[in-house]
Amino acid sequence: MTVPLGVMQSLLQKNVSLLLKDNTVLEGVLQSYDEFMNVVLTDTEEITAETRRKLGTVILRGNNVVRISAK
Amino acid sequence: MTVPLGVMQSLLQKNVSLLLKDNTVLEGVLQSYDEFMNVVLTDTEEITAETRRKLGTVILRGNNVVRISAK
Amino acid sequence: MTVPLGVMQSLLQKNVSLLLKDNTVLEGVLQSYDEFMNVVLTDTEEITAETRRKLGTVILRGNNVVRISAK
Amino acid sequence: MTVPLGVMQSLLQKNVSLLLKDNTVLEGVLQSYDEFMNVVLTDTEEITAETRRKLGTVILRGNNVVRISAK
Amino acid sequence: MTVPLGVMQSLLQKNVSLLLKDNTVLEGVLQSYDEFMNVVLTDTEEITAETRRKLGTVILRGNNVVRISAK
Amino acid sequence: MTVPLGVMQSLLQKNVSLLLKDNTVLEGVLQSYDEFMNVVLTDTEEITAETRRKLGTVILRGNNVVRISAK
Amino acid sequence: MTVPLGVMQSLLQKNVSLLLKDNTVLEGVLQSYDEFMNVVLTDTEEITAETRRKLGTVILRGNNVVRISAK
Repeated sequence: MTVPLGVMQSLLQKNVSLLLKDNTVLEGVLQSYDEFMNVVLTDTEEITAETRRKLGTVILRGNNVVRISAK
Repeated sequence: MTVPLGVMQSLLQKNVSLLLKDNTVLEGVLQSYDEFMNVVLTDTEEITAETRRKLGTVILRGNNVVRISAK
Repeated sequence: MTVPLGVMQSLLQKNVSLLLKDNTVLEGVLQSYDEFMNVVLTDTEEITAETRRKLGTVILRGNNVVRISAK
Repeated sequence: MTVPLGVMQSLLQKNVSLLLKDNTVLEGVLQSYDEFMNVVLTDTEEITAETRRKLGTVILRGNNVVRISAK
Repeated sequence: MTVPLGVMQSLLQKNVSLLLKDNTVLEGVLQSYDEFMNVVLTDTEEITAETRRKLGTVILRGNNVVRISAK
Repeated sequence: MTVPLGVMQSLLQKNVSLLLKDNTVLEGVLQSYDEFMNVVLTDTEEITAETRRKLGTVILRGNNVVRISAK
Repeated sequence: MTVPLGVMQSLLQKNVSLLLKDNTVLEGVLQSYDEFMNVVLTDTEEITAETRRKLGTVILRGNNVVRISAK
């Protein structure tokens, strides 16, 4: 069994989609993470029900994350 | 007595259903977990009151989990 | 004085009723617990204001629990 | 100065009233407690704005507690 | 500089006013506290927008506290 | 780089403005703080959308704080 | 892989944009941070849906942060 944070390792440099607790989705390339699920994305796009916006490099605080998936 | 996380061990590679705090249900094959109830699912489907959607591999942050059951 | 988690020990293999923070009630047979009040129930029924549903074996994350009582 | 948890010691085997975060009141005999304010009550009654209900023995998770007073 | 919990020491046996997260105010004599801001008040009165009620001795769980001031 | 709590050191005995999570603003003279951002203010004024009220000395629990700035 | 807090190191003395949980945006020059994502900004502007306001130097408590990006 690979632990969940180990699976994040396999997503490094890949396009990922993050769902946040406020229902915002962030899409970008996963550059790094830590044990709190703080993550860094590059080429990030923020997608809400109404808008789609480019954000560039983003540091996201882990406690806002619901789930992460490959895109 | 097998502790709760030990019971998760018995669900590895099985179909499970996760209820999240926002009432979303995720169904998929349990690949891994850790002591925070962070989990990894494959062949995941997200089921809300209105929608059903395929998500593939998902890393879920444990603090969003209400309960996990075999499916 | 028996500490609260010690009282849970006396409920093992008994029918218990759990009230969750979202007002759902889970009834089932207590199989295990840990210091976070993560619990495992078998023969679980989920009871909300409108519905009653069989869930089988359930792993419940402790931080959703309000209270546990014998049934 | 007796620390707050020491004052709880003086309430053991006494009738107490607990106010919870959801505004429910639990009244019962305090049997035990721990450092998280997890408590065990016997002969518990649950009192909400509309209802009054007997619950017997109850294990209450501390993070739902607002305050405890002698009754 | 006296740290915040040291300032609480100077309020022991004094009338204090506590604002809670649900906007309730508790007034009473501060008997004890700990590092989580759990506190014990005697001769407590609970004051809400509509009501004023005597509660006697109260053990208050610290995570409900917004602020404490001398009265 | 001076860490954030070190910057608070430079605000001691100065007029500060604190924004709380419930949108209340507290203005006063910063007397002390600790690593949880618990703070003590003197000559405190509480400012909400509708009211402005003198509170004297206030001990504020850190987890209610959004931000602190010099005034 | 540079961990997320390491990426914050690269933003020191740069203009950054912080999104807070209450949807407020703070823009300013990042002066310092710690492992809780407490941060200090100078020349800060607070931007909400309706207003834009200068705040000068601000100490922000980390648990209010959703994300940080270069501006």
